[in-house]
Amino acid sequence: MYDGARYRGWQRLADSGNTIQGRLEETLSRMTGETVTVSGSGRTDAGVHALGQVVSFRLEREVPCTELLAGLRSYLPEDIGAVSVEKAPERFHARLSAKEKVYRYRIWNSAAPCVFERRYVYVLPDRLDVERMRAAAALLCGTHSYLAFCSNKHFKKSPVRTVSAIDIRTVGSELQITMTADGFLYNMARIITGTLIEAGRGDRNPEDIPLLFEEGRREQAGYTVPACGLCLMEVRYE
Amino acid sequence: MYDGARYRGWQRLADSGNTIQGRLEETLSRMTGETVTVSGSGRTDAGVHALGQVVSFRLEREVPCTELLAGLRSYLPEDIGAVSVEKAPERFHARLSAKEKVYRYRIWNSAAPCVFERRYVYVLPDRLDVERMRAAAALLCGTHSYLAFCSNKHFKKSPVRTVSAIDIRTVGSELQITMTADGFLYNMARIITGTLIEAGRGDRNPEDIPLLFEEGRREQAGYTVPACGLCLMEVRYE
Repeated sequence: MYDGARYRGWQRLADSGNTIQGRLEETLSRMTGETVTVSGSGRTDAGVHALGQVVSFRLEREVPCTELLAGLRSYLPEDIGAVSVEKAPERFHARLSAKEKVYRYRIWNSAAPCVFERRYVYVLPDRLDVERMRAAAALLCGTHSYLAFCSNKHFKKSPVRTVSAIDIRTVGSELQITMTADGFLYNMARIITGTLIEAGRGDRNPEDIPLLFEEGRREQAGYTVPACGLCLMEVRYE
Repeated sequence: MYDGARYRGWQRLADSGNTIQGRLEETLSRMTGETVTVSGSGRTDAGVHALGQVVSFRLEREVPCTELLAGLRSYLPEDIGAVSVEKAPERFHARLSAKEKVYRYRIWNSAAPCVFERRYVYVLPDRLDVERMRAAAALLCGTHSYLAFCSNKHFKKSPVRTVSAIDIRTVGSELQITMTADGFLYNMARIITGTLIEAGRGDRNPEDIPLLFEEGRREQAGYTVPACGLCLMEVRYE
C-alpha cells in the first residue's frame, strides 16, 4: 500500500524521479545485494494511492519471506507499506497474471469541512443526482472500446476492456465509486468518474454514453478528475 | 476541527508563530473588519488534533451565523475546518463554561504498515496487555491531584481534577484510549497514556498508581507520548 501524494507515479523514470517502483527496487537491491527489478500489477499515475497493489520480482539467491517483509518494513519510507510477502509460482507475473482490478474513487460531496481525509478525496460540494449517476454507470459497464476514456492520444493497442461493475455508494459525506474491470487504460478510472459526475450534475445525458463507445473521441467523455481521490483497492488473480 | 501537525498549538504566540488561534483571529478579523479575539475551550499542544474544539468570540456588529460559517469555510486553511457557527447566550465562554472534555489517543499497535492514518496515530508495535492497561485505567480515574501527570513544573493552581472515564478499545490494529475529565493539566492526557502503555508492557504495576497521586512527582509517572496521536474529541457544556 502507498500514499501516492509525494510520488511521480508507480513507474520508474529514466531521470530518476521519485517513483514507487524506484523506491521498491532501491530498497530490495540494498537488502539483497542483487539488482532487483519489480513488476507492478499496473502503473498508478502520479498522486494515485494504492491499498492492494501487487508486485512480483525474482531473486537469484533465495531469501525467506519473513526476512524480506521485515526488511521492507524497516527500510521503505513511511508512505509505502509492505502488507505481506509470499513465494509465488514460477510463472506468476504481477501484471501479466492479473485478471481483474478494483479501483475506488472518493468524492467528498459536502460543504462541511474535510480536514483529516483531505489528501485522499476529491472535494466537490456540487449537488449530484446519484440515481442519474447510477444510470450512467450501468451504461458504462460491459465489453467496449474505451478509447474515449483514455488520455493517451497515441494509444496503439486494443482499447477493448470489460468493466464488470461500477458501484456508487454514499458513506456519510462521501460518494464512493468502485470500478471493477479486467484492465484500465491510461486515466480511464478518472475519466469514467468525471463522466459520472457530469451526469450527476445534469450536464450530461446518461443515454448518450453508448455514443462515446462508438465514436471513441476523448473530448466527448467527461473531464479527468484529480489523482488524489483514486486508490487501487485490489488486484485479482485466478 | 483541525489537523494540528503544521501548528505550534492552539494558543496565539507573541512571536506570531503559526497557531490555530492566530489563524482563526486573522480570518475573523479580515472577514468582519473588527479586531476579534477568540477563546478556545482549552489549549491543545503543538501537533495535537481536534475534532470537537469549541471557540467563542464577540463581535461589535452582528453578522448572520450562516455568513460567518461560509466565510470561515472559504478563508481558513484546508487543515482547519469550521463545523458550525451558533449564536451563544450572552454569558457563554468556551473555556469558562466547559464542564467536561473528551480526548482520544490512538496507538497503531501492530507491525503492519500504517500508511494512510500515519499522521494521526502513534506507531507502537510493542506487545501490550490490554487487561493490565484497563486495571491501571480504573485506578487513574476519580478525583485526585494529577500533579504527577503535569509537565509544567511551575504549576501553581489547583492540580485537582476529576477523571470520570478512561475507556480502552481495540479497533482493528488500533488501540484507542478515550479519556473524559472536567479538565486536563498540561500534557496530562499524554502522560496518562504513557503510564497506561508502561502498565501494558509490564514495566509498571497498576497497583502503584495511587502512589503517583500521593507523591505528585512527575518523574514517577509514565512518559509523554507523541502529540500526533492525540485528538480533542468533544467539549461538553451544561
